[in-house]
Amino acid sequence: MDTDTALAQRLFDRLRAATSDGVGISRESYGAGESAALDIIEAEARTQGLATERDAGANLVVTLPGRDPALPFLACGSHLDSVPQGGNYDGAAGVIAGLLALASFRAEGFVPTRTIKLYALRGEESAWFGRAYIGSSALFGKLSTDDLAMPHVVTGRPLIDCMRDAGVDVDRVARGERLLDPSAVAAWLELHIEQGPVLVARELPVAVVTGIRGNFRHRTIECIGEAGHSGAIPRWLRHDAVFATAELITRLDRHWGTLLERGRDLVLTTGIIGTDPAEHALARIPGHLRFSFEARSQSTETLEAFYELFRSECASISEERGVAFKFDRRLDSAPARMDDAWIGRLREILREMGLPDEPIPSGAGHDAAVFANAGVPSAMIFVRNEHGSHNPEEAMAMDDFLRGAELMRLALRDAAVAP
Amino acid sequence: MDTDTALAQRLFDRLRAATSDGVGISRESYGAGESAALDIIEAEARTQGLATERDAGANLVVTLPGRDPALPFLACGSHLDSVPQGGNYDGAAGVIAGLLALASFRAEGFVPTRTIKLYALRGEESAWFGRAYIGSSALFGKLSTDDLAMPHVVTGRPLIDCMRDAGVDVDRVARGERLLDPSAVAAWLELHIEQGPVLVARELPVAVVTGIRGNFRHRTIECIGEAGHSGAIPRWLRHDAVFATAELITRLDRHWGTLLERGRDLVLTTGIIGTDPAEHALARIPGHLRFSFEARSQSTETLEAFYELFRSECASISEERGVAFKFDRRLDSAPARMDDAWIGRLREILREMGLPDEPIPSGAGHDAAVFANAGVPSAMIFVRNEHGSHNPEEAMAMDDFLRGAELMRLALRDAAVAP
Repeated sequence: MDTDTALAQRLFDRLRAATSDGVGISRESYGAGESAALDIIEAEARTQGLATERDAGANLVVTLPGRDPALPFLACGSHLDSVPQGGNYDGAAGVIAGLLALASFRAEGFVPTRTIKLYALRGEESAWFGRAYIGSSALFGKLSTDDLAMPHVVTGRPLIDCMRDAGVDVDRVARGERLLDPSAVAAWLELHIEQGPVLVARELPVAVVTGIRGNFRHRTIECIGEAGHSGAIPRWLRHDAVFATAELITRLDRHWGTLLERGRDLVLTTGIIGTDPAEHALARIPGHLRFSFEARSQSTETLEAFYELFRSECASISEERGVAFKFDRRLDSAPARMDDAWIGRLREILREMGLPDEPIPSGAGHDAAVFANAGVPSAMIFVRNEHGSHNPEEAMAMDDFLRGAELMRLALRDAAVAP
Repeated sequence: MDTDTALAQRLFDRLRAATSDGVGISRESYGAGESAALDIIEAEARTQGLATERDAGANLVVTLPGRDPALPFLACGSHLDSVPQGGNYDGAAGVIAGLLALASFRAEGFVPTRTIKLYALRGEESAWFGRAYIGSSALFGKLSTDDLAMPHVVTGRPLIDCMRDAGVDVDRVARGERLLDPSAVAAWLELHIEQGPVLVARELPVAVVTGIRGNFRHRTIECIGEAGHSGAIPRWLRHDAVFATAELITRLDRHWGTLLERGRDLVLTTGIIGTDPAEHALARIPGHLRFSFEARSQSTETLEAFYELFRSECASISEERGVAFKFDRRLDSAPARMDDAWIGRLREILREMGLPDEPIPSGAGHDAAVFANAGVPSAMIFVRNEHGSHNPEEAMAMDDFLRGAELMRLALRDAAVAP
């Protein structure tokens, strides 16, 4: 029989080996790497004697049946996709922690009152289709026709086709049907590496999450100016898409600084920017530039106020520089609060484990936000992780992970026998 | 016998048909489109009874032999390459104007005292290898080992290999040998479309050029920050390559405005910018950004002063934002003055033609700058052109072109019999 350490290490190693891209790991949403990851977890779950199935969203579901199947079940898990050239722990840590818990319950013959299910979700990362939480949103009937038409960032193939290929019942998803009834779920418990530097800075191996930032996004904004010979057009006659966008970003950066000083929660990112390789040149005034824009905050009010500011700066620069900004569809994710009772329970177990119980907010988004906004009492456990995330350098110590997994195991065990 | 109009129109049409790319025309330096253009001009020159050859730089040379071959010869012409998706007149107009002159001399049996040569030059555009004037620089032994190693912007193939494939005697070029002795050239006369809006604004069909802007360039500057999850890293811990570069460009833009107010001649362009598609994502703080930077001025002093300012702003932003800027080799083109005697002669002919003789400076660079800086008395004729250049919308009226070609023909005829 494996120790938890050996089992966890084996699974992380298998995932890495199967989805390495030479730099980091790539597990494309509704693509080959993600499917390979689901298969690896499923095979191990069966080895451990657990029942597995794929739900209508093509997510992997591992079940430990409870004594009373009529009771709402406990759900835990996380996602198995990744950004391109991402890290091995982002998402996978939560799935493996859930599997450790279910495998240990199974091994010791523990039969819970409520059924416990582990979800290995698909499609959490926005890197592939421009929208986050696709898999969990599909579960609750929250994907629109526009969402399903979103093109794959590399191939241009619509999301609905990629989902169908992965085995999703896209007809039900397209009708906006719930694949999972929130009232059937007693709670959602998700362990995830922290993707920022706070736990490292505060020397906390694990932490309970209080809430999750929401965001607004434009996947592609186009700045349209006028191309021309770089030597021959004087400054006052230029309509330079790069200079215009640089000024826009600089102005937004200044507003950001001001809002932070006033105590607002906000982060701004332009992760993607580029002139068109088919027409750009060193000596050509750029007539087109495409860029992405994202703002995140724990406050819906801050997001809405900043969106107004953003659009008004675009309008002002358009007028001053004779360029136009063209916006694709605005995408939104609502901020979410975690369940207070669960926060209290998790902090209590942390104290019993002899660990500090300081809770922290989540800057990054997680499927837990979708579960919470669908009405499922939700909670998250962060595990300390260095060098951030969405990059191959993420570094989670196995000791920290095992503490987080133990916290989840104890919480599930308590809740599974509670009335 | 063709009229000038018919001959010119036929040649422009042939060039366009042979090198169309669906959007504009593309005549890659030392590539297929450029070679096709040389072949078209050569075939027509032969049809017109003119002798043709390829020089050691693989340029096309069309010769009308003079009575006294010991005298320095008159040279005219321009380049036949283009930027990607460029316009049909940029460069080609000067070659066709020269061919019209030589063909008419040949047809009327005019035998000049001095030999007259038409050059259809290769490799003038910087779009393909990041350096302008490659063909004329090769003629005067001005390509360094570093220049010859420059990679093709699309294929990465070194310039020297592309030149060899096109038929250049690269051994001589690599040794820095002069392929053309400047003292053997009495003058260089180049007609070119204006690539800016000045002639249109001032209602001048043609104009004589007083001087040519020089420039400094970096083909690729890399801004290196630190990638991370966009939601999880607060502003004060970010090292965002896009925000840093946006601020750099915005600061340089502000300096530019200030310098113009002080009467300096300057244009700044970042024609190419982009995050790396292999690793960028909507929700990932960009850790890398590449961009080009070019400054042009008629004053070497202004260029040098601005270069200092540019590097000091890079250093300041590096320190403030914890990013690094990595610079590739700085490329320089010296500003050039056109020959005063030739300017006077051309303006006099313009007046005799009943046209306004207002001279203008050239914002764009031209091979004439290389001839001038090699010691060849050089002159340029600009032809009015709408919608600028380096784009498919350039629009030169045939009447304006024929006036420019006539100005060149008359100037060559006078000079070819002068002592």
